[in-house]
Amino acid sequence: MADILHRIGVRGSSPDDVYAALTTLEGLSGWWARDTTGKPGDVGGVIKFRFVPGGFDMQVVELQPGRKVVWEVVEGPAEWLGTRVDFELSQAGDFAIAVFAHRGWAEPVEFMHHCSTKWATYLLSLKQLIETGVGAPDPVDLQISDWH
Amino acid sequence: MADILHRIGVRGSSPDDVYAALTTLEGLSGWWARDTTGKPGDVGGVIKFRFVPGGFDMQVVELQPGRKVVWEVVEGPAEWLGTRVDFELSQAGDFAIAVFAHRGWAEPVEFMHHCSTKWATYLLSLKQLIETGVGAPDPVDLQISDWH
Repeated sequence: MADILHRIGVRGSSPDDVYAALTTLEGLSGWWARDTTGKPGDVGGVIKFRFVPGGFDMQVVELQPGRKVVWEVVEGPAEWLGTRVDFELSQAGDFAIAVFAHRGWAEPVEFMHHCSTKWATYLLSLKQLIETGVGAPDPVDLQISDWH
Repeated sequence: MADILHRIGVRGSSPDDVYAALTTLEGLSGWWARDTTGKPGDVGGVIKFRFVPGGFDMQVVELQPGRKVVWEVVEGPAEWLGTRVDFELSQAGDFAIAVFAHRGWAEPVEFMHHCSTKWATYLLSLKQLIETGVGAPDPVDLQISDWH
């Protein structure tokens, strides 16, 4: 098994702000995919994310307000099925910290390398959304390669 | 053991262009750390990278022109010592592809999460340097959190 790991800090923010951006359609569509529907605020709810190159559905596994969000991939690319995405939130001085993991990849395939870099750009979009009010979600996301 | 993985594509470029940016002081100081000294073009050579928050030395382990670069960390933060950084280069249509790995972390500590995101920003700086002529190396690199 292999995991994608990241960490960002959102200046002038709180874990509650980041939690809201992870558990509301307004938040998720502001930093990750504009075409986001479903129930991000309910444990057991399914969130449907649709991107230019494809999409996937996440089921909400765990919610601890201001502290933790865990999703499991229930529809999407074969490599993503059954993997889990988690965000652990905390405060460090003036920064809200998000420690991110996308866990449980069967193999470190080239697509996993791509997704790792792409996750970084989306997490920086999340930071930018909260700090400035404007994120860079799909389809206005940063293109990192021939794979989008 | 845990690995950081990334993948970028540099538009309108060739693996030789990326190889040059990885094996010359001019290239490395243009995307990663302006304060870079040493021998990046020689197998066995040591490269000294110095950043605002610290620095490390890499020994060049393998060089395959236009195809592969491997470094081993010989001085730096305890978590980095003995880890290896490799870049595998190829062409995909109009893009030069760099598949990156920073392998051999003993534990997936929070610092590894940070370094993964930070690597993504530096690899995007490498892409930007080759595509536009201007990268974002330390000390003008993108700040991602309270940890720089």
